[in-house]
Amino acid sequence: MSDPFVVVGADAAGLSAASKFRREAPDREVVVFEKGRWISYAYCGMPYFIEGRVERMSNLLSLSPSEVEERGIDLRRDHEVIAVDSDTKTVAVETAEGETIEQGYDDLLVATGGRAETGSFNVRGLDGAFTLHDMNAAAAIDAYIAEPDAYDPARADVSAVDRERVDRNAAMPAPETAAIVGGGYVGVEMAEALSGRGLDVHLFQRSGHLLPPFGEAVGERVADELEAEGVAVHRGTPVKSLVGDDRIEGVALDGAADSVAADLAIVGVGIRPNTELLDGTGVETGEGGAIRTDEYGRTSLPDVYAAGDCATAVHAVTGEEAWMPLGLTANRAGRAVGATIAGDPSPVGEIAGTAVVKAFDMEAGRAGLVEEETAREAGFDPVRETVTAGSRSGYYPGAAPTDVTLVADRDTGRLIGGSIVGPDRAAIRIDTLATALEADMTVPEVERLDLAYAPPFSPVWDPILVAAKVLNGTLDEE
Amino acid sequence: MSDPFVVVGADAAGLSAASKFRREAPDREVVVFEKGRWISYAYCGMPYFIEGRVERMSNLLSLSPSEVEERGIDLRRDHEVIAVDSDTKTVAVETAEGETIEQGYDDLLVATGGRAETGSFNVRGLDGAFTLHDMNAAAAIDAYIAEPDAYDPARADVSAVDRERVDRNAAMPAPETAAIVGGGYVGVEMAEALSGRGLDVHLFQRSGHLLPPFGEAVGERVADELEAEGVAVHRGTPVKSLVGDDRIEGVALDGAADSVAADLAIVGVGIRPNTELLDGTGVETGEGGAIRTDEYGRTSLPDVYAAGDCATAVHAVTGEEAWMPLGLTANRAGRAVGATIAGDPSPVGEIAGTAVVKAFDMEAGRAGLVEEETAREAGFDPVRETVTAGSRSGYYPGAAPTDVTLVADRDTGRLIGGSIVGPDRAAIRIDTLATALEADMTVPEVERLDLAYAPPFSPVWDPILVAAKVLNGTLDEE
Repeated sequence: MSDPFVVVGADAAGLSAASKFRREAPDREVVVFEKGRWISYAYCGMPYFIEGRVERMSNLLSLSPSEVEERGIDLRRDHEVIAVDSDTKTVAVETAEGETIEQGYDDLLVATGGRAETGSFNVRGLDGAFTLHDMNAAAAIDAYIAEPDAYDPARADVSAVDRERVDRNAAMPAPETAAIVGGGYVGVEMAEALSGRGLDVHLFQRSGHLLPPFGEAVGERVADELEAEGVAVHRGTPVKSLVGDDRIEGVALDGAADSVAADLAIVGVGIRPNTELLDGTGVETGEGGAIRTDEYGRTSLPDVYAAGDCATAVHAVTGEEAWMPLGLTANRAGRAVGATIAGDPSPVGEIAGTAVVKAFDMEAGRAGLVEEETAREAGFDPVRETVTAGSRSGYYPGAAPTDVTLVADRDTGRLIGGSIVGPDRAAIRIDTLATALEADMTVPEVERLDLAYAPPFSPVWDPILVAAKVLNGTLDEE
Repeated sequence: MSDPFVVVGADAAGLSAASKFRREAPDREVVVFEKGRWISYAYCGMPYFIEGRVERMSNLLSLSPSEVEERGIDLRRDHEVIAVDSDTKTVAVETAEGETIEQGYDDLLVATGGRAETGSFNVRGLDGAFTLHDMNAAAAIDAYIAEPDAYDPARADVSAVDRERVDRNAAMPAPETAAIVGGGYVGVEMAEALSGRGLDVHLFQRSGHLLPPFGEAVGERVADELEAEGVAVHRGTPVKSLVGDDRIEGVALDGAADSVAADLAIVGVGIRPNTELLDGTGVETGEGGAIRTDEYGRTSLPDVYAAGDCATAVHAVTGEEAWMPLGLTANRAGRAVGATIAGDPSPVGEIAGTAVVKAFDMEAGRAGLVEEETAREAGFDPVRETVTAGSRSGYYPGAAPTDVTLVADRDTGRLIGGSIVGPDRAAIRIDTLATALEADMTVPEVERLDLAYAPPFSPVWDPILVAAKVLNGTLDEE
């Protein structure tokens, strides 16, 4: 008898793979091991839960354990896979009871995800200091922010929650001032969320502008929006350390004598791939230290696949290996691996690095290679233009300035990246650029796209077309 | 000395051509003849002016005559070109004074636009009956709707306006009930506009659903929205004739004994290209009776170009000739012709038939070949799926059902068309499909697009990706 398809990790990539596998091969077995209690949660929704826009933590769960089992998936929570032997095709698994069992596999998918970086910051040692990469952290932050007598335990209405941690945080005095370390997605979204909860918010960004992968034009407008909403944005301001004994008291800045007082700190300085399970197996790793995978999600170990935040992918623009831990990437790669293992070889697809973010009423998107340095490193000679154009016909109420940045390769005229920022339906427009990037379009081809026009939605020349026109002019001059 | 570049018609295509030509060839001459007083107005904005969302008619003008002249363009209004002689390369022009002059040209652009069809309806003979294809009609409708003593003449604040017509309509009793004949863009947009002005609105559509080129899924939801807002939508209800002696009294229906009473009628049954100027020249015409043009906008006559609503274009999906009078097409083709004549050969670009429309809070878009019959006529074997998916993550407030229809060719799996409808940022998403169509993507390629995901803007699987997934499943089964 053959062994099952074994999946490590019951989140986006793992459960997408298991579900697709069972749909395609309903008479074959799949076992999913999850080291904790949480499965299938919407990581990207945590800031909106903390903000209070999402009322219950259970709203963020896509699938319950029983729904997973209804799909014919053998889900084992509190089961941590601690070793992989690709010669004997077995994994060693530690159960909740501390037993170690062995499980053979026909194919193995490593979908162990990523975890928040803490850098040099003493996050674990201080009450009121948090990273944001799991639901227990989100529940704890939410409880910590509430006044002790006003906290509603029904907010964290999922049995998997670390109730002891929630209760402990709920009992602490409510904070008034928050320091957010890092101006990436998490930082920007948490700035909005914590302002929404009534806190004074300081956002510290090491480099000169927020959201570095979105480029300067986006960073500037998002910073303006945050400041207009009362967030203190500190750019070019590296945080040296968290200050406090038991509870967070503030953050110390590089080159500044006084620290900035804060009774809540969120450290959002990046995430790293969870690859330790394969340490010592000889598996190849690549960009960002993630597990190297090919176009079908295969690792360098036979019959071992990896998908999601722990795995590399192929970049649509460079054709090279990249590591970009994003939600769609994980879901899609998992699904493709499930199909492939079920007998229907399916490429995991390339990634264009498409991302969107909201900061109060400002929306932004990015795709491809936006920063000059990244483009140069990938072997391009980048030419870039940023234009400001109206989101609608000028006479139609609600028209708002929309900044579009397009980046092209000088030699070939090929579009290699872009960003969009503005308050009026700006973010979703990035999909147009993501599609053009996947199609390897040149900027003249982008300029000739037949994009939509109607006064309530776009001017005759869509902001993307205006940007392409200007960039073509620049390319022609040279 | 050489003759100038001569343009017939001072609207989108004509002025785009003249402006681009002067920028590229600043020492060469361009003369633009316009038979009337109006230039460069935003046709698509007229419903919003009538609705009152746009306060002044002057808001709809893109360029004033003096701005045109500042660009070095010799603009002659009240000059009607009445004949073209492509052998001697001259046009005959009738001036406001009734004189006929001759003007030689090096190159000629015919940008005579289109005009509203009236079908068999007696629009001109009845007060209160209108088509909507020029600013004088828009001003007259606006004046007609107002109570005689409440009309503000400053609404029509453009000197070109037919003041006598406006005054006459303003003096008539205000209407209470409107009949709109035709459920295309004009009909749908005018239904919203007239409801906004407080009228009871009946919308009559000959075929079974509104907005035929958008497909049934869009037509149904737009009809539901109109009805929810109080518009009486009559589908499958051809109007036989307008009823009334001097003033409109109602509309008579095919096969119904009683007519439906109305004291305002808008007839929106299509537009036709203005090609009469070239009658007798032997110029080739094509789709829709429009002037046939090649990829550079050239007609079959030497040195004679055509662009805009009077000219054909090449369809991005079929590669065949098509006639789709739309704003961007006119602007882009005009601009390309201006560049070409100035010495920089520029293709006018293909059209994907991308269009968007708003009906109260409902937004819709379409691109490519959506209707089965059209797809079959173009030689495809269409397979179609419609899905309903959320516009945002389900837990994020404002998520709304979005219907995406994708159409593929069965043999090749190529995407050939699609539509989107929903209340939450649905329309602008059509640009993703327009881009995929121009790139000749297959449905599996669309399914692997790296589209944006963030809870406020899109679920992990964007509605377009969900539709591609489902359509791929259908294609696989066959």
